[in-house]
Amino acid sequence: MSIQTILNRRFVFSIALVCASHGLAQESTSTPTATPSPYSAQTLTELKQLQQAALASDYAYRQVAHLSNNIGPRLTGSAQAQKAVEYVAAELKALGLEVQLEKVTVPHWVRGEETAALVEYPGMAEKTTQKIILTALGGSVATPASGLTAEVIVVRNFDELQSLGREKVAGKIVLFDYHFDKLMAVQGHGGEAYGEAVRYRGDGPSAAGKLGAVAALIRSVGGAEYRLPHTGQTNYAKDAPRIPAAAVTAEDADLLASLVPQGPVRMRLLLTPQQLPDAVSYNVIGDLKGSEHPEEVVIVSGHLDSWDLGTGAIDDGAGVAVSMQAANLIQQLHLRPKRTLRVVAWMNEENGLAGGKAYAEDHANDVANHFAAMETDGGAGHPLGINYSTKETKGLLEPVAKILQDSGAGILNFAEFAGGADLGPMTKLGVPGFSPIQDNRTYFHYHHTAADTLDKIVPRELAENAAVVAVTAYALANLEQPLPR
Amino acid sequence: MSIQTILNRRFVFSIALVCASHGLAQESTSTPTATPSPYSAQTLTELKQLQQAALASDYAYRQVAHLSNNIGPRLTGSAQAQKAVEYVAAELKALGLEVQLEKVTVPHWVRGEETAALVEYPGMAEKTTQKIILTALGGSVATPASGLTAEVIVVRNFDELQSLGREKVAGKIVLFDYHFDKLMAVQGHGGEAYGEAVRYRGDGPSAAGKLGAVAALIRSVGGAEYRLPHTGQTNYAKDAPRIPAAAVTAEDADLLASLVPQGPVRMRLLLTPQQLPDAVSYNVIGDLKGSEHPEEVVIVSGHLDSWDLGTGAIDDGAGVAVSMQAANLIQQLHLRPKRTLRVVAWMNEENGLAGGKAYAEDHANDVANHFAAMETDGGAGHPLGINYSTKETKGLLEPVAKILQDSGAGILNFAEFAGGADLGPMTKLGVPGFSPIQDNRTYFHYHHTAADTLDKIVPRELAENAAVVAVTAYALANLEQPLPR
Repeated sequence: MSIQTILNRRFVFSIALVCASHGLAQESTSTPTATPSPYSAQTLTELKQLQQAALASDYAYRQVAHLSNNIGPRLTGSAQAQKAVEYVAAELKALGLEVQLEKVTVPHWVRGEETAALVEYPGMAEKTTQKIILTALGGSVATPASGLTAEVIVVRNFDELQSLGREKVAGKIVLFDYHFDKLMAVQGHGGEAYGEAVRYRGDGPSAAGKLGAVAALIRSVGGAEYRLPHTGQTNYAKDAPRIPAAAVTAEDADLLASLVPQGPVRMRLLLTPQQLPDAVSYNVIGDLKGSEHPEEVVIVSGHLDSWDLGTGAIDDGAGVAVSMQAANLIQQLHLRPKRTLRVVAWMNEENGLAGGKAYAEDHANDVANHFAAMETDGGAGHPLGINYSTKETKGLLEPVAKILQDSGAGILNFAEFAGGADLGPMTKLGVPGFSPIQDNRTYFHYHHTAADTLDKIVPRELAENAAVVAVTAYALANLEQPLPR
Repeated sequence: MSIQTILNRRFVFSIALVCASHGLAQESTSTPTATPSPYSAQTLTELKQLQQAALASDYAYRQVAHLSNNIGPRLTGSAQAQKAVEYVAAELKALGLEVQLEKVTVPHWVRGEETAALVEYPGMAEKTTQKIILTALGGSVATPASGLTAEVIVVRNFDELQSLGREKVAGKIVLFDYHFDKLMAVQGHGGEAYGEAVRYRGDGPSAAGKLGAVAALIRSVGGAEYRLPHTGQTNYAKDAPRIPAAAVTAEDADLLASLVPQGPVRMRLLLTPQQLPDAVSYNVIGDLKGSEHPEEVVIVSGHLDSWDLGTGAIDDGAGVAVSMQAANLIQQLHLRPKRTLRVVAWMNEENGLAGGKAYAEDHANDVANHFAAMETDGGAGHPLGINYSTKETKGLLEPVAKILQDSGAGILNFAEFAGGADLGPMTKLGVPGFSPIQDNRTYFHYHHTAADTLDKIVPRELAENAAVVAVTAYALANLEQPLPR
């Protein structure tokens, strides 16, 4: 999940919780309607079959296990990302889908060495240093090959930085010590907490660079503290010098915030990432042709690329896996959607969105036939229901929510930017977007870290997500009327 | 806290919790006694003053902050360990204590590079590897300078290893995938959970080495999983080949346990620790002379060395800090103990116990004058009361427990090995040992990891520990009768 997704989604989960606590979803699913049912009786029966089959199946778990354990980290441009493209394409073919690899030109950034140490600080034992644990932000430029050494200054926010001015910032390493709001996150507002803090990851390096800083550090954006740095993309402004940028762990930020007021603190910093020439990669697209409206498409998707520190299990092997599972279950149960179900495994969500943009360009003439689009990119936590991007859609989703309520996922939540970042270019053109509402209370503990690994996924909860995705996608593919756009 | 301490203490905390839940401590503190009070009325008044002063003071927190933030990791033999010796000595002098540095010849092991990657495994993308996060165990020998590459096998326990036999083990890297029992730890039985799992850290490498393994890995011993490796000392058997030994994170152990049954898994492993020549270091000893029995000594202590990955805040800067605080408060309140209060900051608890052993040897002729000895080495979690090593001591501690109950620390718990590992040589000779009973439910999340940092200490809980330590030590120093030995 990238910055853009987060900023779009920040209120989604919290609103959903509010609805849940007031029992609004329950009420809404029982609202009587005078219009004919938007689904045939057969479709409703099939949706229940899909739900039960999803909850009983380990197919999605086996898919995410393969992506994370057997293939591993899948940073855009890497051999592992390519391997994942080939793997998912082969799996979708094995399911009987019509598979296309749609070419995407992607950025190719690679991590290098990343070390830091304090070489001067109050109380330091002579001829020693103190290790600082950090990780380069995605897109960061490198330090000189021999590293750089400079004094560290600490600011809590952009205002503090500005108040220091160029004189006190020039030549320094700036640490943005903005704290992720853990209390907010634990109450289900992780997206909001993340949205606040991630601004420093995105814009901090350029803000510091404009004042002459030689490097920028941020306090890791995330909710747990096990000396674990969290990476993620930074966004250099066009009018700012590009300076090396990294995220230190919460503990290291605390250490610096403690030492700096006591006297001069100097850090040696080495980052050797490289921006290689753009590479060729692919969105993997698998179609299960519709029986009545094959030209109309319902997308069900996740993103195949991941950050490189962990193995991309929750971000976003899980999303790809539940999308594959939707097609698998439909085939297993010998169902046939009326519209075409299109499974998409997007490339480059994390550091460029090249996949989503290329798809929108390549399919620009076919936007009207994109009936609906769904993306799962919030981990694998227990789903509470469905986010939808078009207010008028709610009534059409109520019969679906009634079924999903059986697995605790009956909430319907309007969210203007429902759907993932990859869908942004399409939803902006009017394609209705959908996504599962997911429990993200621990998501930001692991997100973009070395600890985004398979064990963070509870198989039962992944199956619950697969149920929401399969049921919703199949319902949309079989809806007996148009979706409001 | 070392293996030896853990094995001695493993039942202590759990027994204490049982007592608490049955209200036994409350009862015991109100048991009427026919004998004269073991403390003068003045002493009891002073104990209450000490308790209140400890709870109101941030001195202990400032000490552990300096040790962990300003000095940093303090592995035995390091410049930081020496700096810490000098710092504590100077602080104790500033408090008005008679300070001695007692020489200790210590082992000097240093960590080097430590990297590992899977170079062959089922599903691997060509020309890639998958990173394995690990850390060398203390005392480990190095791999060849260019590393070693071998097939990995996974066993759950010693029995599984033995059942494989030399034929299947020789030439391999053996992973002991024994799981720390997190459910046990979260219920307050962390010591027991640790005691079970740590056997593989201590004895695993030699067990594997005897069957011809080329290296041994253990699943990190600890209760949290944030891709965080836990170090700690390994103990090579005299009759076994010494093979390189490291702890992988729980996630990496899971990965290996998942991949190995699918097909051959080969790992490239590089560990470059060095066992340097023994070094000279010191126990720091500060005496506050007794007014009536200056020759009789009550030790209050923690260990000054730490592992090198974190900054040794909970293990055991906290123990040193609360011991220093005991002396500080007595001086601040202008009290004078009847027996000599001896603050000791031990050296080399973690990887050799050289400090505790040297002290026992150097003071062999003076054991009888060691009235009591206390060590705090279980972190800085809320204290529940006092562990004591001599059953007959209980009645004498009851007036103290009654006072400590005001800060929730009124439990008295008999534990044969009360006191820390450093006190072992003295308690074996009959010196009564004491330690605070500490909440260790999260201790093993951070213990021996890079995340043993200052933020893990809750200032209020540290102050509560200081209150227990100061009150108990001062009570022992002013006891009006001998302690049973």
